[in-house]
Amino acid sequence: MAAWGERLAGVRGVLLDISGVLYDGGEGGGAPIAGSVEALARLKRSQLKVRFCTNESQKSRGDLVGMLRRLGFDISEGEVTAPAPATCLILKERGLRPHLLIHDGVRSEFDQIDTSNPNCVVIADAGEGFSYQNMNKAFQVLMELENPVLLSLGKGRYYKETSGLMLDVGPYMKALEYACGIEAEVVGKPSPEFFKSALREMGLEAHQAIMIGDDIMGDVSGAQRCGMRALQVRTGKFRPSDEHHPEVKADGYVDNLAEAVDLLLQHADK
Amino acid sequence: MAAWGERLAGVRGVLLDISGVLYDGGEGGGAPIAGSVEALARLKRSQLKVRFCTNESQKSRGDLVGMLRRLGFDISEGEVTAPAPATCLILKERGLRPHLLIHDGVRSEFDQIDTSNPNCVVIADAGEGFSYQNMNKAFQVLMELENPVLLSLGKGRYYKETSGLMLDVGPYMKALEYACGIEAEVVGKPSPEFFKSALREMGLEAHQAIMIGDDIMGDVSGAQRCGMRALQVRTGKFRPSDEHHPEVKADGYVDNLAEAVDLLLQHADK
Repeated sequence: MAAWGERLAGVRGVLLDISGVLYDGGEGGGAPIAGSVEALARLKRSQLKVRFCTNESQKSRGDLVGMLRRLGFDISEGEVTAPAPATCLILKERGLRPHLLIHDGVRSEFDQIDTSNPNCVVIADAGEGFSYQNMNKAFQVLMELENPVLLSLGKGRYYKETSGLMLDVGPYMKALEYACGIEAEVVGKPSPEFFKSALREMGLEAHQAIMIGDDIMGDVSGAQRCGMRALQVRTGKFRPSDEHHPEVKADGYVDNLAEAVDLLLQHADK
Repeated sequence: MAAWGERLAGVRGVLLDISGVLYDGGEGGGAPIAGSVEALARLKRSQLKVRFCTNESQKSRGDLVGMLRRLGFDISEGEVTAPAPATCLILKERGLRPHLLIHDGVRSEFDQIDTSNPNCVVIADAGEGFSYQNMNKAFQVLMELENPVLLSLGKGRYYKETSGLMLDVGPYMKALEYACGIEAEVVGKPSPEFFKSALREMGLEAHQAIMIGDDIMGDVSGAQRCGMRALQVRTGKFRPSDEHHPEVKADGYVDNLAEAVDLLLQHADK
């Protein structure tokens, strides 16, 4: 593999995944990953542009940022690209009135959305809200529509909490796709539209930006298919087999965000 | 289409689907389909071998047969090929100890199965048992296995109850497949192994048997891909569009089991 200087040449901005990179979620709000608070602070003091790109769909953007600030991270709401606000834009643009299968923690993001007489279903990481009854209701709403529309806030397979691996929204999206014989529209990583909106908000072209994430598909493959570079951290949901994935090869593997920032500050934009 | 005499020539045994052919399920246990009790009695008095082949996975075979006998059907446990007993055979043959994600109504079928220290997951139509917690537990068991094995009792998308459409096991099987990046082994129709075990139990070759069912994929297509013939009844989940399916063509369509038995007694094995 080429030297780091070559791999990171021309990078002017960094897109950071949040869960599994900055912190690990879990009971009591989660805990920072060792070195990440300080690494983010160093990154923000550098000349590199920084933006956060998350598929978090259990919390509103405000609650997420509040929690991260309490953990010590330098982050503000305006720096975060998240699927719930992106979904609200799509709903308004297309005149869609959703049946919401979502976590109560993110419901406030949809306060301004008309949910009467639904003509689509929005599914997010509902956690315990993925009861049989709630899934069956979403299924029935879709089956009654002439042109069933299913919007999914991400399609992650699972994430890691302190208590272990937890099913994400993706498996439930697949369940509804199979039950109804339809294909969902994904809002969030790895959707190219979602990465592009984050790049627009940073004012950079894809080749000038690098994604740092723990998810080989959602972060690494998604960003690369968008023309960006991508580093995978060996924290969060990273598994050693990711480094031998048959199809996806990150532009580099690092132990954690701190190592990624060390390398970036040393080699980027040189 | 060829005359019935030609289409039914050489048939020596009949495989009967249960739900939608003998009876319709619903509140209070369901009701026989008009003419089916008497048609089954006539069939069993004939020289044709008879066996039942069902994907029922919410009830034990004993409970299912007890319910059908109360509705007036001449049926005994030993005549029924059902996915739960077939799964138990597979578990024993392969030394598999399952984590069970199943309905309480079918749990007794697994009484003799060692479920300690699981090395596979068995999923069936668990209904309300498909909570997030139960799905997540099954997912975690699979993710901890070096070679994750998922056995699914059928893969139906949904079924109809008096209260509306209900999600079947298939969507939840798909959810776990996606979450773990694996492919489930389906035990039940339309799995060829399942049809073959029913044929073995009848002592017949595929070309000597005919399937009668209401499901164009699970019953008709499944049996035909196994080398059997298949009739579709216009009862149960039959939809008129089934008769114009682009890929699957039954060997005959009949209004109900009574008409199928009339034709079989007149033309089979001539």
